[in-house]
Amino acid sequence: MLTIEWSASEGWQAPLIKPFGNLSLHPACSSLHYAIQLFEGLKAFRGVDNQLRLFRPMLNMKRMSDTAKRACLPAFDQSEFLECIRRLVKIDQDWVPHSDSASLYIRPTFLGTEQSLGVKKAANALLYVILCPVGSYFNSQTDGLSLWADPKYTRAWKGGTGNYKMGGNYGCSLFAQYEAEDHGCQQVLWLYGEDHQITEAGTMNIFLHWINEDGEEELATPPLDGIILPGVTRQSILELTGKWNLHIPCQDKDSQLSSRIAKELTDIQHGRTPSDWTFLV
Amino acid sequence: MLTIEWSASEGWQAPLIKPFGNLSLHPACSSLHYAIQLFEGLKAFRGVDNQLRLFRPMLNMKRMSDTAKRACLPAFDQSEFLECIRRLVKIDQDWVPHSDSASLYIRPTFLGTEQSLGVKKAANALLYVILCPVGSYFNSQTDGLSLWADPKYTRAWKGGTGNYKMGGNYGCSLFAQYEAEDHGCQQVLWLYGEDHQITEAGTMNIFLHWINEDGEEELATPPLDGIILPGVTRQSILELTGKWNLHIPCQDKDSQLSSRIAKELTDIQHGRTPSDWTFLV
Repeated sequence: MLTIEWSASEGWQAPLIKPFGNLSLHPACSSLHYAIQLFEGLKAFRGVDNQLRLFRPMLNMKRMSDTAKRACLPAFDQSEFLECIRRLVKIDQDWVPHSDSASLYIRPTFLGTEQSLGVKKAANALLYVILCPVGSYFNSQTDGLSLWADPKYTRAWKGGTGNYKMGGNYGCSLFAQYEAEDHGCQQVLWLYGEDHQITEAGTMNIFLHWINEDGEEELATPPLDGIILPGVTRQSILELTGKWNLHIPCQDKDSQLSSRIAKELTDIQHGRTPSDWTFLV
Repeated sequence: MLTIEWSASEGWQAPLIKPFGNLSLHPACSSLHYAIQLFEGLKAFRGVDNQLRLFRPMLNMKRMSDTAKRACLPAFDQSEFLECIRRLVKIDQDWVPHSDSASLYIRPTFLGTEQSLGVKKAANALLYVILCPVGSYFNSQTDGLSLWADPKYTRAWKGGTGNYKMGGNYGCSLFAQYEAEDHGCQQVLWLYGEDHQITEAGTMNIFLHWINEDGEEELATPPLDGIILPGVTRQSILELTGKWNLHIPCQDKDSQLSSRIAKELTDIQHGRTPSDWTFLV
């Protein structure tokens, strides 16, 4: 794992890559009491050429940096941090699966480690990265996911932190997630406002693929208006499909568009399509 | 400090009172990534009779239990947990200040300690309590606090967790707190909705003491409608003043009512007024 410590008096310390092990945290640590914490999630893919690739990692660095600012955690050098991650993945490269349907999940985490109980900016912080081979997030064997929407729960609100990847957004969503499962669904579809606007699903952004009132095929997603997490996949789908003629002949199954998008993305991730969206490890 | 571990397979383990020291936490610990965490705050006061008293601690136990349910953390026996806290304070009784303006702060904390990165109910949890002698929360030498209100930030929303004492409510408030300080104020006054309803201040509930439109003296506080933290002091002030004739002659200074309330509360806390609101250590 990679760890980098920061203190208000000394600034950033030298990054360390060391064996995976427990963290030793003061019981008053501000990440444990006031959720002064944030994370990112990205993946390393093994390509058809056996090269390891990250997918648009600077978008994660940018979002992490934006979230750190919102959490009153210190600024860090995004390119330097990505270089640390690259070296960590290089060392642990044998853990990147030889598979088209699995990858090495990379979890950068940033904690306030202030050792006192006042609600204030952390004078100490810890940036660290752990890795884990992963398959699909969902166990589902089916083509889709079932979503459960109940306006009695709200994930995020304007003036809050729903558009940042702060830990607090997730802990408060858990209760509704289990209510969804009690109703036989896999994820929550979060609604917003009195007119029940569709915002995002439990762990992902959403797209709607439909024939609109003018009879045109349309791909729609909620705008980034302050309550939506700006997903890297979301942005990539918008950029990809923006170049396509979306008047794809609509067959009996809607999944053709999602299959086409998934194929384009995984072809890039696994090196079958050359792209400047990949970052070689 | 007091620690009590829980696991889904073994249930609650025996409580331990042991020397204060760092926690050893797995780097994927769910309290560090998804803010599956909550806390309480209460105080032990040294009375004029040298007895140690907690103030209405079962209200804290109840709120902690309610918050644990919202955070999908396991239920605990509220009375048993209070008995553990009583024994901890008894052992550390020399740390309770001999002072009318200071006390021993008690911080019960409850963390999800699940050791995996999926967003789910924690299969492991840690309940712990640390202690710390404290004076007044604010350094201010003045009678009042200056509040800063800007509708661009929102603390809590209906359908969220603002009425529970979860860590996520605090981390997301920090940015606005520093904006308040940049404007020369001590705390944020949180507004809600398009009509900018007054809700609560940074670390406390609020009361308005005013002469209403009918010329009557009135004490008002926002109702517990799902976005307000149900404070123990808030509830105690409502119960105390409910017995009073609030048509106290209004003098040049509004602080007479707050002084009267503060005196009643501290008289109970320090044993000058016998009351079933105290719990002897």
